[in-house]
Amino acid sequence: MKIGFIGFGEVALTLASGFLMHGIEVSTCIKDRSQKTQKTAKKLELNLYESNRELAETSDFLISAVTPSSAIKIAQDVGEYVKGIYIDINNISPSTAKKALSLIKNGKIVDASIIGPVRKGINVPIIASGPFADEFSKLNEYGMNITVIGSNIGQASAIKILRSSFTKGISALLFETLYPAYEMGIDKEVLKYISETEGEEFKESAKSRIISSAFHAKRRYEEMNEIIELLEETEDPKINKAIQDFYKELHEKLDNLDKRPENYLELFELIKKLKNHQ
Amino acid sequence: MKIGFIGFGEVALTLASGFLMHGIEVSTCIKDRSQKTQKTAKKLELNLYESNRELAETSDFLISAVTPSSAIKIAQDVGEYVKGIYIDINNISPSTAKKALSLIKNGKIVDASIIGPVRKGINVPIIASGPFADEFSKLNEYGMNITVIGSNIGQASAIKILRSSFTKGISALLFETLYPAYEMGIDKEVLKYISETEGEEFKESAKSRIISSAFHAKRRYEEMNEIIELLEETEDPKINKAIQDFYKELHEKLDNLDKRPENYLELFELIKKLKNHQ
Repeated sequence: MKIGFIGFGEVALTLASGFLMHGIEVSTCIKDRSQKTQKTAKKLELNLYESNRELAETSDFLISAVTPSSAIKIAQDVGEYVKGIYIDINNISPSTAKKALSLIKNGKIVDASIIGPVRKGINVPIIASGPFADEFSKLNEYGMNITVIGSNIGQASAIKILRSSFTKGISALLFETLYPAYEMGIDKEVLKYISETEGEEFKESAKSRIISSAFHAKRRYEEMNEIIELLEETEDPKINKAIQDFYKELHEKLDNLDKRPENYLELFELIKKLKNHQ
Repeated sequence: MKIGFIGFGEVALTLASGFLMHGIEVSTCIKDRSQKTQKTAKKLELNLYESNRELAETSDFLISAVTPSSAIKIAQDVGEYVKGIYIDINNISPSTAKKALSLIKNGKIVDASIIGPVRKGINVPIIASGPFADEFSKLNEYGMNITVIGSNIGQASAIKILRSSFTKGISALLFETLYPAYEMGIDKEVLKYISETEGEEFKESAKSRIISSAFHAKRRYEEMNEIIELLEETEDPKINKAIQDFYKELHEKLDNLDKRPENYLELFELIKKLKNHQ
């Protein structure tokens, strides 16, 4: 059995290393890739092809692990030549996944999403959907941790997006509740009584969520686009739209936040100062 | 020591019963009250006064436990006559608490909020703020469970409101995330993966939160007014405003929801039906 990777960044490297330990043949194409990637691929003794076309023609499982913006382009390039099962594991929206996978002519396609930190190794939880998701899950024999969600393309990426939208939303809501509490001098108490309802772990995670919201405000604001696009297919997502506005404003307010604040009080102090300077 | 209650509903009855068990003299005025209240007050052998004025003149601690809409009116009625410490324990906004308590001429005032179900008895957690909160907390000797939060009127009611706003917000956000997931056929999975991030207890509470959101949509929509009013003093609460809109629309959609749905799927099914009938 041959497993091929298009793209050879962190995800591909992690999964490939796991497959190699299970004695499986791993291939990629390193043409036009960085020196570092070429070196890594050679060190791991991968099968190296001159083109993605050759890679597509010879792989039993072809995993697309590229930058999200290249997912469609790559599928277009290899679509005619894919012989085995093509898995899109990129961090993309369901509609992008549908577009990309529709370009794979043999129809042996899987929409896959990594749920959790990829540094966990080959057994990082992965959810998969699509007509060939069951086939893909046979790779669990070689250390993978794939859960098949359904038979439609888009389901796996939708789950990932909806989970992340909820996480972003809670963080924003917490911020909108706790900053006024800070100005009123009751932030510690509000956090305490919220945590009594939400459970033990909430308090510590709340503090780091507030800091992350500020530090990643721009990225979150941008990522909200695909969340809203997905939700809009069903209902008008008012709350998520307001959450996007929240991150946009927070980003604009904190334009010059170049290092991660140590704690949420330091951050709130900064916001108060900026407000008073206006 | 004499403790007086203005109003004698569930809160007053619960606290009064606790004080009586500790051998403390409890008074109220049952003039113009319902038969049931009069009967209960007599059975408990309370001191009964002919007027709230007399009650105010003779109580060391006077607790206002009335319907939220009467809090200011009652404070106005007795403001001049209060001899001891006046505690407003009503479920009101900080600005209403400030208005009501400013009418108590002797300035011995406490803003108090019950945090948790009052059926717990006299030891239900209560937070208190204001110039006489410390004095009030001496009643902990007689079974009360008062935590002093600060010395400003409005702090205790603000904590209660902000806590409840967060709870309402999470429920609405969950709804806005999970209903589209239901239409996509992935609600169970989205809930599962959100729960993996949010902790064990989240899953079950999430289901009952969705049902409660629908069943109490009207009340929540109305209660959001005072939350927004409070938050607006600091920042424009975009997300909370969107949450209010969400509850308003949900209420309008489910106008005829006269019984609590058994489970969230039954509810989502109903919403989908209503949508298709439009």
